[in-house]
Amino acid sequence: MKRSIFGERLAALRLRLEKTSSDTIWVIQPENRRYLSGFSAGDTQFTESSGSLIINKRCAYLITDSRYSTAAVREAPDFKVITMKGHFVDELAGLVGRIRTKRLGFEQGYLTYELHKQIAGRLRNLKRPVRLSPVKGLVQEMRTIKDRAETAVMGKAAALMSSILDNVISGLKPGCTEKGIAREIEVRVHESGADGLAFTPIVASGPNSALPHAEPTNRRIREKEPVILDVGLRMKGYCCDMTRTVFLGTPGPKFRKIYRTVREAQLAALQHISDGIDSSYSDSIARKIIRDAGFGEYFGHSLGHGVGLAVHEDPALSPRRARRLEKGMVVTVEPGIYLPGKGGVRLEEMVVVCEKLPKILTKNNHYYDF
Amino acid sequence: MKRSIFGERLAALRLRLEKTSSDTIWVIQPENRRYLSGFSAGDTQFTESSGSLIINKRCAYLITDSRYSTAAVREAPDFKVITMKGHFVDELAGLVGRIRTKRLGFEQGYLTYELHKQIAGRLRNLKRPVRLSPVKGLVQEMRTIKDRAETAVMGKAAALMSSILDNVISGLKPGCTEKGIAREIEVRVHESGADGLAFTPIVASGPNSALPHAEPTNRRIREKEPVILDVGLRMKGYCCDMTRTVFLGTPGPKFRKIYRTVREAQLAALQHISDGIDSSYSDSIARKIIRDAGFGEYFGHSLGHGVGLAVHEDPALSPRRARRLEKGMVVTVEPGIYLPGKGGVRLEEMVVVCEKLPKILTKNNHYYDF
Repeated sequence: MKRSIFGERLAALRLRLEKTSSDTIWVIQPENRRYLSGFSAGDTQFTESSGSLIINKRCAYLITDSRYSTAAVREAPDFKVITMKGHFVDELAGLVGRIRTKRLGFEQGYLTYELHKQIAGRLRNLKRPVRLSPVKGLVQEMRTIKDRAETAVMGKAAALMSSILDNVISGLKPGCTEKGIAREIEVRVHESGADGLAFTPIVASGPNSALPHAEPTNRRIREKEPVILDVGLRMKGYCCDMTRTVFLGTPGPKFRKIYRTVREAQLAALQHISDGIDSSYSDSIARKIIRDAGFGEYFGHSLGHGVGLAVHEDPALSPRRARRLEKGMVVTVEPGIYLPGKGGVRLEEMVVVCEKLPKILTKNNHYYDF
Repeated sequence: MKRSIFGERLAALRLRLEKTSSDTIWVIQPENRRYLSGFSAGDTQFTESSGSLIINKRCAYLITDSRYSTAAVREAPDFKVITMKGHFVDELAGLVGRIRTKRLGFEQGYLTYELHKQIAGRLRNLKRPVRLSPVKGLVQEMRTIKDRAETAVMGKAAALMSSILDNVISGLKPGCTEKGIAREIEVRVHESGADGLAFTPIVASGPNSALPHAEPTNRRIREKEPVILDVGLRMKGYCCDMTRTVFLGTPGPKFRKIYRTVREAQLAALQHISDGIDSSYSDSIARKIIRDAGFGEYFGHSLGHGVGLAVHEDPALSPRRARRLEKGMVVTVEPGIYLPGKGGVRLEEMVVVCEKLPKILTKNNHYYDF
């Protein structure tokens, strides 16, 4: 992506910041950090940060430590990189003091209680005290709408994932274990040159396919039963997420009906995803079709979710959280029917919201005409 | 691992809980949750939890949702599994009300500001109000000392990682790229049947090896320059972490001296890791050797860290955080010397603290006698 994208994002963030009560924002969530700066390092674990951003009207800093500073300087030319020498709380306090912050916004959904307490105490005791102010979804909201470069990367990620899944599906035979299939997906994703997995693959066969988030087991897949493959990879930080349900040999009438219903619900929902439409509307369309077919109680989750630098992000396609869809949002469309103890079917595409019909990024194959 | 281990851990936690001001503890950190219950699901991302534990003198609950409840029941027989139907804050409030909690301890280093605020408000408004009380390191402290089953799993993880690294190192040739080598490690880890990577492999050659946390690049490795390989995998949740520095062809006198110094520092440090010794002592031993050789300013990080269900956990082998080492702790011993712009050497073993000398879990090979 071009360097100027980050300059544009900074400008947009500054406009949004004016509408909050904070004069400066402290960004710690890794996806937000990457989105604004280009700094690509992840956090090794939640309790360890590879860096954070301090942004106000005049300046933009990336605070990191010596392990990451070379990469930070290279990747984030729009930011002044500060390499910490001492304790983070002291460095932060020193910086916000120097730039004359009065009220520092922080990401309330990501900062821990403990770090908040430490920092609040430290900032209160500065010569010119700084107040901490919780901020919600400021950068996440910007991330919901993808620009062309982002949808292009996500399109490539989806094409790559689709072709890996193609190869895996064409090699499926009765007797393969769920774990073995998952391992093959993992190996192929790493061989492909993607950044890596977006999440651990779900491979769930027979009765296990009735569990929407089943861990792969040693169960061997059999003929005529559903095998759900829910897979994703990451490319330049961006995720792809897709699901197919495969049968080795035509299943009985029950699962043919379930499959037809899920596919019909998905196709109908796709007709109602476009700029300006309420996000819960497509969910209600899919849900009605599934309910009318007699499976209403077996579709427990939402129709879909936003995807981007995080696998799950806003907007949700859910009965509970309605909002207006906008051009450039990327969402999954993934209805499912799960019969406890028997099995389930889920079908998932990743699409870009457009003026009219959505653009499907995942490769539209491995569907049955039962 | 046997089922009774979790029962024992629960009993030990209850004893520790008596010494806090809370009558009940709410455990949300995934590694702590797994350690106490056996429930192995990870969190898809930090902002999404697959479950949490509520434990007091009399009862032990695992709160999860329908995606995970089947696995939870199977994996955590010592816990009563509650499958959430509504909003988490309501479910939590209902449960702590029913079990007559007065003061609910929470993990202050993991709970977000936002969720804390929501829950505190909700619990305050109960008919019998419940107070939230921050707790620090209660379960992490238990996790520092590994039992036999844990060190056995970690020994297996280390043997597997060592043998994968063996194969990768024996295939190294001038012209291989860092990224290509990293990809091969990833593929072999996934093929091996391990749970997966413990972290993204570090492969850093030539000047890049001077950056302790370098991301693999397209740089091609050359003869006589250092190539740092810092790799880890996970098995049954437990991590292995190890580092070798490889040269294709004997390097010049400067890097031979650096290598000898790092190895000498490591071997000396290993002599001073045992039950009852201060954790910072081995760091000071290694640091003195490196300083005396004239490289004091080029060893910027700590000597090592604890490893277990998390890659980085307590205890640290660091000049700053001294504590008594105890039998059964698992730590890394990883001195390094990094010359900016030129290159670096790091050597890392993972060891179990014993009565006398530590037991080295990683396979002791690929060392040079320069």
